[in-house]
Amino acid sequence: MSYNAPLKDMLFVMNELAGMSTISQLPGCEDATADTVEAVLEENAKFCGGVIAPLNQPSDEEPSFWRDGEVTTSRGFKEAFKSFGEAGWQGLQHPVEFGGQGLPKLVATPCIEMLHAASLSFALCPMLSDGAIEALLTAGTDEQKATYLEPLIAGKWTGTMNLTEPQAGSDLAAVRTRAEPQGDGTYKIFGTKIFITYGEHDMAENIIHLVLARTPDAPPGVKGISLFVVPKFMVNADGSVGARNDAHCVSIEHKLGIKASPTAVLQFGDHGGAIGTLVGEENRGLEYMFIMMNAARFGVGMQGIAVADRAYQQAAAFAKDRVQSRDLAGSAGPVAIINHPDVRRMLMSMRSQVEAARALAYVGASISDVAHFHADAETRKANLAVYEYLVPIIKGWSTEMSETVTRDGVQVHGGMGFIEETGAAQHYRDSKILSIYEGTTAIQANDLVGRKTVRDGGAVAKGLIAQVRATESALRESGNADFAAIARQLADGSRALDEVVDYTVANIKGDVKGVFSGSVLYLKLAGIVLGGWQMGRAALAAQRKLEEGAGDAQFYKAKIATARFFADHILSQASGLRTAIVEGSAGVLALEVEQF
Amino acid sequence: MSYNAPLKDMLFVMNELAGMSTISQLPGCEDATADTVEAVLEENAKFCGGVIAPLNQPSDEEPSFWRDGEVTTSRGFKEAFKSFGEAGWQGLQHPVEFGGQGLPKLVATPCIEMLHAASLSFALCPMLSDGAIEALLTAGTDEQKATYLEPLIAGKWTGTMNLTEPQAGSDLAAVRTRAEPQGDGTYKIFGTKIFITYGEHDMAENIIHLVLARTPDAPPGVKGISLFVVPKFMVNADGSVGARNDAHCVSIEHKLGIKASPTAVLQFGDHGGAIGTLVGEENRGLEYMFIMMNAARFGVGMQGIAVADRAYQQAAAFAKDRVQSRDLAGSAGPVAIINHPDVRRMLMSMRSQVEAARALAYVGASISDVAHFHADAETRKANLAVYEYLVPIIKGWSTEMSETVTRDGVQVHGGMGFIEETGAAQHYRDSKILSIYEGTTAIQANDLVGRKTVRDGGAVAKGLIAQVRATESALRESGNADFAAIARQLADGSRALDEVVDYTVANIKGDVKGVFSGSVLYLKLAGIVLGGWQMGRAALAAQRKLEEGAGDAQFYKAKIATARFFADHILSQASGLRTAIVEGSAGVLALEVEQF
Repeated sequence: MSYNAPLKDMLFVMNELAGMSTISQLPGCEDATADTVEAVLEENAKFCGGVIAPLNQPSDEEPSFWRDGEVTTSRGFKEAFKSFGEAGWQGLQHPVEFGGQGLPKLVATPCIEMLHAASLSFALCPMLSDGAIEALLTAGTDEQKATYLEPLIAGKWTGTMNLTEPQAGSDLAAVRTRAEPQGDGTYKIFGTKIFITYGEHDMAENIIHLVLARTPDAPPGVKGISLFVVPKFMVNADGSVGARNDAHCVSIEHKLGIKASPTAVLQFGDHGGAIGTLVGEENRGLEYMFIMMNAARFGVGMQGIAVADRAYQQAAAFAKDRVQSRDLAGSAGPVAIINHPDVRRMLMSMRSQVEAARALAYVGASISDVAHFHADAETRKANLAVYEYLVPIIKGWSTEMSETVTRDGVQVHGGMGFIEETGAAQHYRDSKILSIYEGTTAIQANDLVGRKTVRDGGAVAKGLIAQVRATESALRESGNADFAAIARQLADGSRALDEVVDYTVANIKGDVKGVFSGSVLYLKLAGIVLGGWQMGRAALAAQRKLEEGAGDAQFYKAKIATARFFADHILSQASGLRTAIVEGSAGVLALEVEQF
Repeated sequence: MSYNAPLKDMLFVMNELAGMSTISQLPGCEDATADTVEAVLEENAKFCGGVIAPLNQPSDEEPSFWRDGEVTTSRGFKEAFKSFGEAGWQGLQHPVEFGGQGLPKLVATPCIEMLHAASLSFALCPMLSDGAIEALLTAGTDEQKATYLEPLIAGKWTGTMNLTEPQAGSDLAAVRTRAEPQGDGTYKIFGTKIFITYGEHDMAENIIHLVLARTPDAPPGVKGISLFVVPKFMVNADGSVGARNDAHCVSIEHKLGIKASPTAVLQFGDHGGAIGTLVGEENRGLEYMFIMMNAARFGVGMQGIAVADRAYQQAAAFAKDRVQSRDLAGSAGPVAIINHPDVRRMLMSMRSQVEAARALAYVGASISDVAHFHADAETRKANLAVYEYLVPIIKGWSTEMSETVTRDGVQVHGGMGFIEETGAAQHYRDSKILSIYEGTTAIQANDLVGRKTVRDGGAVAKGLIAQVRATESALRESGNADFAAIARQLADGSRALDEVVDYTVANIKGDVKGVFSGSVLYLKLAGIVLGGWQMGRAALAAQRKLEEGAGDAQFYKAKIATARFFADHILSQASGLRTAIVEGSAGVLALEVEQF
């Protein structure tokens, strides 16, 4: 149940697919030299594998618990978070001026993957802080920045995101929490928020809640939502922690997974009003929240990749160790089950999907860095559009992928997988939240269809499809049998995606429900085609390396075989998805509500 | 969280697809008149919905527990099992001569579905008794039959199946439990068995263990395994329960799901030897075990359908009730989420797969009845071959289907789905064992490829494909747009299956590992094609009913729409599966063990 960070694959993807050397030449990214990057990753791998990963299973067995308004987190979390902050890991991608290390997203991303793989429950706490930091950096007043950013970035305080209310679910138009101006620049906040990750805990001196609420004259719906900072403890002028604010945790949830991560119900203002200050301008809360959300959505995608990789590592180790039944090709006695073809198939399926999703996410991080740091505004804009197209895919596809991969992780263990002590079932349980929180896959898919595809008439999507086809041509020209097979599946896949984009753009006006009844399938199709594209690029890069004779030949050969597997087993699903999207809406919508 | 048995669909499938009226004309099945069948189903629905279903969630929250060798089952189980036995439900499909009702499998099957849907954990106990009854009926001595069958069939005692040992997993060749003949016709049994469902509990006066063990001179491997009856309490000559036998439960497992069902580690013979008697002949234990297994495998397939239907019912109820977000087609306020297309898509996916799997399983039950009861030996033999081909598909496909359906059940609930109190997560956890126990899907697939496809050169498979094509023609001739779409997908699906059968038969000798690396995918492909075939037949039957103007028009229209959905969304996966099977083995097998 140990976790060994896949540094070799991470560095391969960063260097060969995500253009690390180009990123480190962008203005502001000069410190991210090859040596620094490798050192950061190695140090992070040590910390995650050595300090965090051993907490994962015990903390599932002894979850965080609530008593009298306070939450005691699982054994070891408090100390581990202190080490995490002191080592500077919270500040990895945040600005140097507030104590961070200012590294590009492409470098932070593998570190985030490692932390989540070590423990999803633990890593959620710093992930939520990242979101709060991002929002304050973008829209906070100078005073808010001066008050909150340094302790957040140092890991002394943590942040939360307060969107959901009991009656509202994902529907932010229904938010009812009130914010009453006090005339002194502060507001009193009244309301109930649910599903607040790390909304209460004992791991930090203070918790900085970012809360969506309505001012008295706000218009109805999402256009009347503002964002407020509401600290658990008020902050004195000297930065020290002051009086307790009126934000209290009344319970935490009993969940299927990520049990060590406390999910709080927070009550604001039951004792006179919780004091908060406005972030940015009134009624622009949704916009700021989306800044946090986009960062968080990418982060949740990384969670999917992380837990899937952890499950893969555990299943592969078990399969090499567990001896049972004779080899099909004939052996005297029983053999390790990794020799049985269906076990092998499951391991390859797990491995290939993790690698494809990792490659797509890291390439996304790199595009995000170009969108942030590039000197040329047009280049920034173009890359931002591509990144924003990719975010719902990285979030939605990687997380749904993690459900099937952790499922196979249980399956490889056979009956032992169903026994909690084995630890495989925890990954299966933990992963199930990922396709739900920060917007379900359906919400990601709505974003992909509405804002990311229809709005530009499919232009960004078509640009990516053209790149897929360029890779397909390069593979076909190679004359290698594996590459020809990958090219064949990429051709089918890119054609399917192209047709679906055309269908989406053409029918959104005339048949909006029909188009949206295939939106999640479109997201999955885009995930496997773009993931398959990255595996195709990876195979080409691996072949170049083999021809150069440099590096680990076994690694490069495995990469090519894994790309081949992905093409035949995963990309091959593309045409079925196309059928379901383009021809399948009639069946989705035919029944009356009463017929269910 | 209530459970309403889908009697309308059950009766439709029995009457229109599974030939109930033909079955009730078979010798020995004459009592199964239409009126009786309907009355039995209605009574069973009442019992399962009223008595068992309410126990399901509480028993998950308060699982059965072990103390000092004894297991206390979840609150209410003991009383419910008493009612179950007294009402005669355990005896439904067992011979009248031992107190059963002697009903055909086609009538018992929906009752079994209802019981599992009400509570998988509870229903496992009678399911294991069914297996023990089956084995004793087939191979037991007259004395064993006289001693054990009546109390088992009356539900006063229960049965278990003891195969797995710590070192052996599914590999029965590795069984080490010893049976030493005592010269008086009894044996002393020594060994440890694990994963014994209801191996110890407080719901019955006695527990009849059927145990695989080796006699002293037995040959190695599976040819040296014998089957023994080892009661928990010895049985006196008058049939009363006597001295405690040396079979003790040393612990029960802490599991991902089916927590109310105790999974025991049993220690035989730690205090001098557990007394047992031989079933049938020495060294033929595997053969007898397969009798129990085939019945149990079909039963586990029914568990998959049952838990999937329960999850579907719960998700549909929630989706009609939960109001959130505006309608895409435009509405003033928020609407019930069942109006959102992706929620609708998930519900249709759940519904259509449940209905397809149910239809295939009931048709399988009907074929089994013909194989048992038909007057003509040739007809019996031909039907037995078809039934045996279907068993691994019904087991493997229905159970893997239940994982995706219960997953969608959680997803429809959004964040609430992840909270245990909602109850959706329980189905997701419970279902995960189904594709593992009684042989993992890979073991089913080995059976499908090896014994069921290769051995007859694909003859049975081809016979079924011909029937699929006949349905496809009938659909195409109808001239209806929905039917044409279903026919198109059935054509693609049956072609894919046909090619895979040819590939399997042609390559088993030359490329055994290649063929088996696609075996699970072949099983899934067979499941969706044969399930799609049943949905096609169902659509035709529904159309006939609509034309006749009899019955519930809304039900028949829904059936056609559901069949259309299944074709576009599920059957459309067939060609991707074909590719993965026929072209995908290279990727599965390319890596060396060290490369994982």
